[in-house]
Amino acid sequence: MKAVYAEIITIGDEILYGQIVDTNSAWMGTELTKIGIRVKQITSVSDEASHIVEALDNAKTRADIILLTGGLGPTKDDLTKDVLADYFHTELKLDEQSLADITELFKNRGYGLTELNRQQAFLPASCKPVRNVLGTAPGMWFEDGGKVYVSMPGVPFEMKRMMTDIVLPQLKAFFKTPHIIHKVIQTVGIPESMLADTLDEWETNLPQHLKLAYLPHLGGVRLRLTGTGIDAAKLERELEAEVSKLDQLIPKYIFAHGEVVLEEALGQLLKERGLTIAAAESCTGGYLAHRITSVPGSSAYFMGGVVAYDNKVKMQLLGVKPETLQQHGAVSEATVLEMAQNVRQKLGTDIGVATSGIAGPDGGTPDKPVGTIWIAYADQHGAKAKLLQYNKNRQLNIEYTALAVLNLVRQSLNIAVDE
Amino acid sequence: MKAVYAEIITIGDEILYGQIVDTNSAWMGTELTKIGIRVKQITSVSDEASHIVEALDNAKTRADIILLTGGLGPTKDDLTKDVLADYFHTELKLDEQSLADITELFKNRGYGLTELNRQQAFLPASCKPVRNVLGTAPGMWFEDGGKVYVSMPGVPFEMKRMMTDIVLPQLKAFFKTPHIIHKVIQTVGIPESMLADTLDEWETNLPQHLKLAYLPHLGGVRLRLTGTGIDAAKLERELEAEVSKLDQLIPKYIFAHGEVVLEEALGQLLKERGLTIAAAESCTGGYLAHRITSVPGSSAYFMGGVVAYDNKVKMQLLGVKPETLQQHGAVSEATVLEMAQNVRQKLGTDIGVATSGIAGPDGGTPDKPVGTIWIAYADQHGAKAKLLQYNKNRQLNIEYTALAVLNLVRQSLNIAVDE
Repeated sequence: MKAVYAEIITIGDEILYGQIVDTNSAWMGTELTKIGIRVKQITSVSDEASHIVEALDNAKTRADIILLTGGLGPTKDDLTKDVLADYFHTELKLDEQSLADITELFKNRGYGLTELNRQQAFLPASCKPVRNVLGTAPGMWFEDGGKVYVSMPGVPFEMKRMMTDIVLPQLKAFFKTPHIIHKVIQTVGIPESMLADTLDEWETNLPQHLKLAYLPHLGGVRLRLTGTGIDAAKLERELEAEVSKLDQLIPKYIFAHGEVVLEEALGQLLKERGLTIAAAESCTGGYLAHRITSVPGSSAYFMGGVVAYDNKVKMQLLGVKPETLQQHGAVSEATVLEMAQNVRQKLGTDIGVATSGIAGPDGGTPDKPVGTIWIAYADQHGAKAKLLQYNKNRQLNIEYTALAVLNLVRQSLNIAVDE
Repeated sequence: MKAVYAEIITIGDEILYGQIVDTNSAWMGTELTKIGIRVKQITSVSDEASHIVEALDNAKTRADIILLTGGLGPTKDDLTKDVLADYFHTELKLDEQSLADITELFKNRGYGLTELNRQQAFLPASCKPVRNVLGTAPGMWFEDGGKVYVSMPGVPFEMKRMMTDIVLPQLKAFFKTPHIIHKVIQTVGIPESMLADTLDEWETNLPQHLKLAYLPHLGGVRLRLTGTGIDAAKLERELEAEVSKLDQLIPKYIFAHGEVVLEEALGQLLKERGLTIAAAESCTGGYLAHRITSVPGSSAYFMGGVVAYDNKVKMQLLGVKPETLQQHGAVSEATVLEMAQNVRQKLGTDIGVATSGIAGPDGGTPDKPVGTIWIAYADQHGAKAKLLQYNKNRQLNIEYTALAVLNLVRQSLNIAVDE
């Protein structure tokens, strides 16, 4: 059974100049992998016709599927449609369905149709139009020499809707694919190299068709075990067996299986225990609450929080004692403990957490340099604080701190259970 | 004068499988552009030696500089170093400086040096090592056939530090480059196609060596005017002249020049006026406060906020009247107005803002579907609310809402001045 390969070509100087981050390709890679299509390469090229053609010529030597994003806008620097018409030796003609969709879209937005947008309804005659229900640029599906070429807008939510509703199902139907199964194991609190040492013997003994990858990220190290085979059920059993071995090897560091982020795993844990939580934030400035509330259904356990950026707010809304702030300062164990205990008490939750630190770039002092951050956890048994020492930029200090708090809650809940 | 081209090659199945988003390339693209080096292509390849070699062979046909990231970790799936040693026909040998750096790093982290990490100090004999002060994988600088090849870790903050301190200055010194100057103009509150219509005549009359690009993103449409030339001062004057024309054409929609996000522009405006602000958030769950506090120095104008996720918190901490919540519901003009006015009054700020809506995916009703969101602005003159109707996913609803609030404040302040 032959593997099916896809290549993603993103078009636009804005990606090369770094004006925007290409998040589309990662999403497409995930979705294609799920249906057993392997992404062989992702290529970002400029808004030049010749460069787009060169990328197409190279891609078709390696891949069965070529997915293009970008360059479909109404403006002068959008060339993709014309390039594809030339590439497949065809003409642009008006697609009535697309014109109707675009007209409808503008009606709903309360705008009249512009000539530029009307031109977006002209598509290469040899393509199957791919409807865009969220934007003005229709997609295009070409079949040529047994290969499939699909052009989609670069606007993420338009492309995603198009892929989900139309392109992925059609690709699934068009190609026979081998089974590629991924098992993801989420770890936190252990560095990659230590993890690799701990797992070395197990990894060395993995069968040839199972492959382990270490994916370090802000929140910890993600382990991805990938299996390829003909018998899906057998492959599934083999992978599950190896995952169980992993659970035995590093129980303390695994917080979830699968594509679950720490805040989701924690939310699940809180729901199961029927516990509620509140956050008092200084240096994280609302980011911790945002991470917790980014999980659908988080209103079941997250009651709310206070962003106490100014010391007045720490006193007024959180009842932190003026003496505490005077004697120890805002960035101190005493202050962060009061913040956690008081937000818990004021919002009537089971758990209270707090952050206070110097995110930077300014505000550092010799004894409290940028990256000096206190976090705290409080529940009915009492409260504890932890000092974090980072030497990172503002954004990283904020993100690491939020993740450290989430992990502190996770560990505290697990310890509570172990007892 | 010949342009200098760079290509970026990112190595790792995790990017192709979509397990991580490639944010490195965008950052590198921005930094290279700043020193007049044009990124010709960004290529993401798998962890296979043959594929890495193929990418190198292709890149050197187009580019003078090839920058590689990833595949330098201590684990079995990291092949870059061995591939480069073969590619440049050289051997791995111990680099004492790197070993010293790695040993030092582990000492500071309180861990002993593992054999895996010790191996990271072995580098191809023909490369100039590039010091990594933040991680265990040294970078490598190769010169071959007049071209430069640099291999760096994929960990973003390690790569960025290496580029900033060592690689970018060395590339600047190594290559003579033409002048490429970008002017970025930030707009908000007008769709791309309308903007294009408004600017069509001006854009058509631009001289050949000046190029306009429309870069739509969540926060609005970014305009990038790019000029290429030999006389930097002349080019600068030409670009400034065109930017002034733009300021005349669309004064109401331009919120900043340059790489400034809306929260930075707003922060600047608040500082100039000596105004303070507080936020009361329901559906944005802390994200609005996070966006405001992501700006260094925001503590000068942002006093704090309340994340009132639960109605009890809306009443207790924000003093929203129970009748208001009973009669109109949490997602209503009346509630969001009280939230904005009360957070302003309780925190003693000049401005109060608030959000209350249904971010989704759950919680929608026939008369208040997912995406029904109220935002409000309050100052000493009074308060106003605005209804937003989105039909997006949870994350997008949260982000759009935060940006709508920031723009509402910006508009309110500008109107206040116009009066």
